[in-house]
Amino acid sequence: MSEPVKIGLLGRGTVGGAFAELLDDRAGAVESATGKSLELSGVLTTSQGNFEEILAGADIIVELMGGTDTARDHVLAALNAGKPVVTANKQLLAQHGAELFAAAEAAGVQLRFEAAIAAVVPVVRVVQESFSAVEFTKVSGIVNGTTNFILSEMASTGSTYEDTLAKAQELGYAEADPTDDVNGADAAAKMAILARLAFHTPVTLDQVDFEGIESVQPDDLAYAKELGLSLKLLGVAERLPEGITVRVFPCFLYPGHPLSPIGGPFNAVTVESPEITEVTMSGPGAGGLQTAAAVLGDLVSIVSGESPVHSAGRDLPVLSDMVSSFYLHLEVADEPGVLAEVAKLLSDSGISVKSVVQRGISADARLVMVVHECSEELFKSAVGRIAQLEALRSKPRFIRVIEEEFV
Amino acid sequence: MSEPVKIGLLGRGTVGGAFAELLDDRAGAVESATGKSLELSGVLTTSQGNFEEILAGADIIVELMGGTDTARDHVLAALNAGKPVVTANKQLLAQHGAELFAAAEAAGVQLRFEAAIAAVVPVVRVVQESFSAVEFTKVSGIVNGTTNFILSEMASTGSTYEDTLAKAQELGYAEADPTDDVNGADAAAKMAILARLAFHTPVTLDQVDFEGIESVQPDDLAYAKELGLSLKLLGVAERLPEGITVRVFPCFLYPGHPLSPIGGPFNAVTVESPEITEVTMSGPGAGGLQTAAAVLGDLVSIVSGESPVHSAGRDLPVLSDMVSSFYLHLEVADEPGVLAEVAKLLSDSGISVKSVVQRGISADARLVMVVHECSEELFKSAVGRIAQLEALRSKPRFIRVIEEEFV
Repeated sequence: MSEPVKIGLLGRGTVGGAFAELLDDRAGAVESATGKSLELSGVLTTSQGNFEEILAGADIIVELMGGTDTARDHVLAALNAGKPVVTANKQLLAQHGAELFAAAEAAGVQLRFEAAIAAVVPVVRVVQESFSAVEFTKVSGIVNGTTNFILSEMASTGSTYEDTLAKAQELGYAEADPTDDVNGADAAAKMAILARLAFHTPVTLDQVDFEGIESVQPDDLAYAKELGLSLKLLGVAERLPEGITVRVFPCFLYPGHPLSPIGGPFNAVTVESPEITEVTMSGPGAGGLQTAAAVLGDLVSIVSGESPVHSAGRDLPVLSDMVSSFYLHLEVADEPGVLAEVAKLLSDSGISVKSVVQRGISADARLVMVVHECSEELFKSAVGRIAQLEALRSKPRFIRVIEEEFV
Repeated sequence: MSEPVKIGLLGRGTVGGAFAELLDDRAGAVESATGKSLELSGVLTTSQGNFEEILAGADIIVELMGGTDTARDHVLAALNAGKPVVTANKQLLAQHGAELFAAAEAAGVQLRFEAAIAAVVPVVRVVQESFSAVEFTKVSGIVNGTTNFILSEMASTGSTYEDTLAKAQELGYAEADPTDDVNGADAAAKMAILARLAFHTPVTLDQVDFEGIESVQPDDLAYAKELGLSLKLLGVAERLPEGITVRVFPCFLYPGHPLSPIGGPFNAVTVESPEITEVTMSGPGAGGLQTAAAVLGDLVSIVSGESPVHSAGRDLPVLSDMVSSFYLHLEVADEPGVLAEVAKLLSDSGISVKSVVQRGISADARLVMVVHECSEELFKSAVGRIAQLEALRSKPRFIRVIEEEFV
């Protein structure tokens, strides 16, 4: 029996606590999988422990403290000291990834982070290891469980965004301050990391355009149901001839899209390329135990001597205009000719309508339509012209729609 | 630049040919991922090549010839010669796995086989590497694309099994001789391998009970729709207190089950444990290019020096009785009291009815019900007694039902 491998743990909150317990609980399984035992040699919390001592006494550092300042310093110090690091900290990687990956490469040690994206759903490993020789064309993900829970609930109950958020907070699916989840920033950080992995190109957080779900209305979901669509907050990283795009936006999916059945707080990621067609992975995207299980999986891989390759060897431009299909929601005066006017303005821009639902509400009507794929800029300028119509009763609303591409 | 890694390829059919092309096509990506180049040093087909020469000149053997006799001899010879092997041959592993894994372990070389289960869907890697320290409670899979295509088509078109099989053959989703696919034998081989990986215990093909889809009737699918169910050929490997069960059977899934949205020729596998809750992977389960991509992924891992652990360190008993919910389809005389009689026979066995659909057809009626979970033996004996009822017009039919366990 060889010496135990010493683990220095930074942070003992929900995930850190679950990890410490899991490490103890699965000690036998780890030993039978790797031939080695893991031992917690030190724990740093806000009130106890000294980082330098913990680092000196550890073979591997597990960073579960969160934040991007102290966490960055500690992770960098560990890598520079030649010690592998496992982290679940997506903001750390999205903001300081370039620096940290470079430090890991220079020191010849591993920096693993499966738990940072979709917790225990093995997205990072699959992209890095199963498909390291694949040229991805697109990575799409539901990578924020809070927003997916809220949208699923709004769709099934018809409640407002505000009421559903309150319910999510009660159930523990949303934080007391849900800002970064609901405005798309959390998903944007994860998509920046995923895009880096998939396209081997550095992507910084400020290159990711993101929108949240705060302005989604119950009637958007009601019309969507009528049109056979489901609403998700989607992250999409795409390889185009001229570069890549990385974006997060609320979006309607047609049934048959691999992400359309993903409901509740679950996460899922679909990767695409000609060789693999599409592969989807789904599961719980959060939770202390589930995140801890992903961290343990990374640790086991390090101890087993696996060595994934994830250098960002390219530097593709990150683009912003995008082609999409759209759902357009208009409140208009219920008088003849309005639909014709709207349709003409769209058609003048070369935008063609796929389906329409019209419904009267006293003197006003709602006109809801889905248009075929077009440039986002083109669509927005057509909507600007529609907004000028006299018959318009409120600002037009629109949401992107992803059509199913597979049979 | 180091010496190229020499690949000896056995077999150049659909998958072998696609692999040879892909190896060429992705040469640059492989080199940037691993720092090494791969070179095809020899190809064995039925009409050309000499195995001993190919083996002597290769660093790694890729077995894509199929069959279980010559393939077994060649793979064994390669492992014994200390050369890693990648194979896509599920029958080989299901029948000779114990011997081959032992040879690989003895020689200290890798035997990788991602492509043998669900082609490019990274089930093997995820079970072996991401979750090697996880104690799985259940592995469920749609691991045969032919049958999933047929069942999806039958559900959407209302056609008979025979007509749909013919269509699947036309479209290339079913072989000219579809026996092993439609009777469940192919899925059984894959589940034997998966159960071995998940439960670290040897499972031989003859320990897997399997049933196929040949006797599924269009009206089973029609009633299922009414009851909100979808029909799949499911493989289930389960850890019970006394041992494990490994089975393949047609089965109705409630909506919300992670495998229920998987349609067409796709494959999907869900793994469960308390730590991970459930993780599902899905994608194309067949296809020359997709299978070749999985083989290439394994090769890249070997060349990168990864070393997964997959010894069957345990020897859990493989059990046969199972608890399940059932759909029961009865053709009965349309007279008063029949439902009461049937319900009493079930209730006498402690089996409770969850939902009933009754519909008259001239003098006869169809009585379709779903019962709550009960022992399979108990259910079968109750059905035996129901079959004796005078009002019965034909042999009772039943299909298992999996209820959604997650919220």
